[in-house]
Amino acid sequence: MSKTNSGHFFEDFALGQELVHATPRTVSTGDVALHTALYGPRLALHASTPFAQALGYREAPLDDFMVFHVVFGKTVPDISLNAVANLGYARGRFGVPVYPGDTLSATSTVIGRKETSSGKTGVVYVNTVGSNQHGAMVCDYVRWVMVNKRDPASPAPEAVVPELPERVAPESFVVPEGVSFAGYDTTRSGSPHLWDDYTVGERIDHVDGMTIEEAEHMMATRLWQNTAKVHFNQYEQASGRFGRRLVYGGHVISLARSLSFNGLENAVRVAGLNGGLHCNPTFAGDTIHAWSEVLESVPLPGRDDVGALRLRTVATKDRPCGSFPYRDKEGRILPEVVLDLDYWILLPRRR
Amino acid sequence: MSKTNSGHFFEDFALGQELVHATPRTVSTGDVALHTALYGPRLALHASTPFAQALGYREAPLDDFMVFHVVFGKTVPDISLNAVANLGYARGRFGVPVYPGDTLSATSTVIGRKETSSGKTGVVYVNTVGSNQHGAMVCDYVRWVMVNKRDPASPAPEAVVPELPERVAPESFVVPEGVSFAGYDTTRSGSPHLWDDYTVGERIDHVDGMTIEEAEHMMATRLWQNTAKVHFNQYEQASGRFGRRLVYGGHVISLARSLSFNGLENAVRVAGLNGGLHCNPTFAGDTIHAWSEVLESVPLPGRDDVGALRLRTVATKDRPCGSFPYRDKEGRILPEVVLDLDYWILLPRRR
Amino acid sequence: MSKTNSGHFFEDFALGQELVHATPRTVSTGDVALHTALYGPRLALHASTPFAQALGYREAPLDDFMVFHVVFGKTVPDISLNAVANLGYARGRFGVPVYPGDTLSATSTVIGRKETSSGKTGVVYVNTVGSNQHGAMVCDYVRWVMVNKRDPASPAPEAVVPELPERVAPESFVVPEGVSFAGYDTTRSGSPHLWDDYTVGERIDHVDGMTIEEAEHMMATRLWQNTAKVHFNQYEQASGRFGRRLVYGGHVISLARSLSFNGLENAVRVAGLNGGLHCNPTFAGDTIHAWSEVLESVPLPGRDDVGALRLRTVATKDRPCGSFPYRDKEGRILPEVVLDLDYWILLPRRR
Repeated sequence: MSKTNSGHFFEDFALGQELVHATPRTVSTGDVALHTALYGPRLALHASTPFAQALGYREAPLDDFMVFHVVFGKTVPDISLNAVANLGYARGRFGVPVYPGDTLSATSTVIGRKETSSGKTGVVYVNTVGSNQHGAMVCDYVRWVMVNKRDPASPAPEAVVPELPERVAPESFVVPEGVSFAGYDTTRSGSPHLWDDYTVGERIDHVDGMTIEEAEHMMATRLWQNTAKVHFNQYEQASGRFGRRLVYGGHVISLARSLSFNGLENAVRVAGLNGGLHCNPTFAGDTIHAWSEVLESVPLPGRDDVGALRLRTVATKDRPCGSFPYRDKEGRILPEVVLDLDYWILLPRRR
Repeated sequence: MSKTNSGHFFEDFALGQELVHATPRTVSTGDVALHTALYGPRLALHASTPFAQALGYREAPLDDFMVFHVVFGKTVPDISLNAVANLGYARGRFGVPVYPGDTLSATSTVIGRKETSSGKTGVVYVNTVGSNQHGAMVCDYVRWVMVNKRDPASPAPEAVVPELPERVAPESFVVPEGVSFAGYDTTRSGSPHLWDDYTVGERIDHVDGMTIEEAEHMMATRLWQNTAKVHFNQYEQASGRFGRRLVYGGHVISLARSLSFNGLENAVRVAGLNGGLHCNPTFAGDTIHAWSEVLESVPLPGRDDVGALRLRTVATKDRPCGSFPYRDKEGRILPEVVLDLDYWILLPRRR
Repeated sequence: MSKTNSGHFFEDFALGQELVHATPRTVSTGDVALHTALYGPRLALHASTPFAQALGYREAPLDDFMVFHVVFGKTVPDISLNAVANLGYARGRFGVPVYPGDTLSATSTVIGRKETSSGKTGVVYVNTVGSNQHGAMVCDYVRWVMVNKRDPASPAPEAVVPELPERVAPESFVVPEGVSFAGYDTTRSGSPHLWDDYTVGERIDHVDGMTIEEAEHMMATRLWQNTAKVHFNQYEQASGRFGRRLVYGGHVISLARSLSFNGLENAVRVAGLNGGLHCNPTFAGDTIHAWSEVLESVPLPGRDDVGALRLRTVATKDRPCGSFPYRDKEGRILPEVVLDLDYWILLPRRR
């Protein structure tokens, strides 16, 4: 029997099946430094331990999407090694803060599956839960992928498609215990704009652009221990659909998150991931810009120090975002749009 | 009102104004590892905690220019986002040692401003002070930049140009408290050449060359949280003056510092920054070489374990430095010279 | 006298001479994060402190080849700066586990030398020992290199060639004190295949490929403080034999080690290095694949929790390894083979 991992095919996923993913990972300030070097984040909460401690954190916690990448990476060998397409995310939440020294592991449960009309592939829905060394949830989300069947002739299982919310409910957001944003320092954070200052429908062009290099996206993707072959093997990709290595979609999410600092300097936490689409492929050499729209603004139950904004952040390649590029007149997403992310962020409130 | 940072224009800088910069940053061994990977430094003091402790340091301190980059990076969004040119440095000093775990922040004071003859720009002089979490000075320097006016028609303010010393006075150097170089180990440091062995007028070709890659200078510049747009956005630069992303001048300073290990293995501290000029632009693909000349040699008041050398270090692109390239016959700096740095270093003395 | 290091020439190496190498280096979780980003290792032992502690380690130890690179890097300025070729390794062993915070230094002893028939070069054999801050051995190996003579006319010394074992004897392997693999978790390690499951003669195609970028191999090589000029200076290499910067051979070793996770997920330790050959040069842009053959399988004296496999791992450039490429019909190593590594690994045993 072959000792190498050939991944799971559609037939291998049973409803209710639990996949305990390999390689628990102790994160460190080394990972944080690389995250800084690769994306250029500037949120004071993640950059400064005294800043974080003044709010009640034990020390500077990791950026939420960094936690997402570490958890997501573990799932790749078991879930998406034979994936044809990463179709969507839903019901994503971030849990207890993750600090350097914490160890993250991940488990996924198959919550749905449905053969596609071609009969050659199927869609698998998994709920992935990332936990720290104490078993506390750090990240919990649903992802669905299109996976090849091992044998096109194998019979279609009964179709089960989970009911997924259009958006994460604000009452389920996790504000870390013991944390208060009452004394939040807007001088050191870099902007006076708090939750109160953003209005529904407001659009923000994040202005700056960042060009991606092969070495950067590969280093990032390896750092997250994400093994999807399309990101690393130019010899194979040369004869593939694009002739190029594909950039991991999460790399673009983190670039967009960092670019969005310019206009969202106080977005201290990603509270929920409602949905996300990697609309078009991204390659090294592409320059990423981003813009955001405020979709909803809600206070948090029982808290006057922090509120939530639901955002759509759109990232483009080789197109600045002053005109907020998104869809054409027929409603089709533009070819230069590479990311359409619907998520919740928390911002301190004015008092 | 736009929520994004459009930077300050010449009119925005008032004499005596204090700018408290954003994003305090806790530095870590992760930053040190990246500094090592990006520049290849080999000074034992910065590489080895036992080596540092034998001299009286708490542990291995950060390289001084690394501290400079972190402090400098914070000033960019407030000082030089609309800068036309970075004109000079003066009166730079390094203070208490910075250790992993320390948190650095920066504040600048406007100490001069003068409209240029064109009427479209002005020169702004700032004194930037970087501090650790205890408020102790880690780095203190003057920088002047040419900045665009918001409105060319706005009246010129009274010109104030600060008086700046040609060189930092040796009596103002900071030798860390409790540190003695009496037992300095020249076997483990890699060279027997101490302060006593260098003579004024001596020139050293540092021999080695290092080629710069796009991924490297961008990772470094993001690590320092320096947001100057010219370093990152190839889409925009393609139609700019050079058609290329510019390499952050400080990247070349750190490359030159690392290259200069070959011949200056015991230059344990950068004590003062007298002046510096980024003479010509540097781009990815350029190979950097460097040479140094000893301009002055002074003992330190009250110390027989350590002395100071004033150096000029010149870095070139695509030209080895065996012939010490610098100026042409007319005194003009050669086009292949990219850095002209005038600074003080400390070296252990022979006893 | 020149203050820069011109390296040692053949005449400079005296039999029995001890070379104490410069720059002791305190390794950190920052180095570990970079190692992860550069190679994508996934062994749970090195990634997770709780996983390591469950086996009796103090915390997650560093990958053995990472230790090798740090030790090897120190030797370059003294041993191989004037090397014409890196000819071989033998009798390599790994000692006590290395943890973040440990400080590594290296000393080499000249154990052989022999002028080559040309009279212009000679072969030097050194035994390098890397130690931690307590003087405990972390890595101990023999390397021989062909070095230029300073003066072709200088007389040949008496030839002394050390007797080197064809393979490291299993009784000399170091299993860290207090460590037991009895409770090894094959779910979290990513594979059920233990020592018992591998048979002599078995070949494993590690399937995946990884393309090398200039920024990556240079960052790695600087991280190991390896100063060999051929890796960094494109200006000089442009007129050299290949017109390109050469990739450090150890970079390929670590890539092969990471690729081999797919099929050798439980290879928790590199116990011995029997020999290694960098058969052909590797350049940026090359895609590395690897395959392994089990040469021997031996139990460890007095232990029922862990056994050893002797492996040959072959790495190729731009050629997948499904057909196990190695030698042509005449027995010559194929031009696409870049690494031929003969080494011992330890794997937990089934109980």
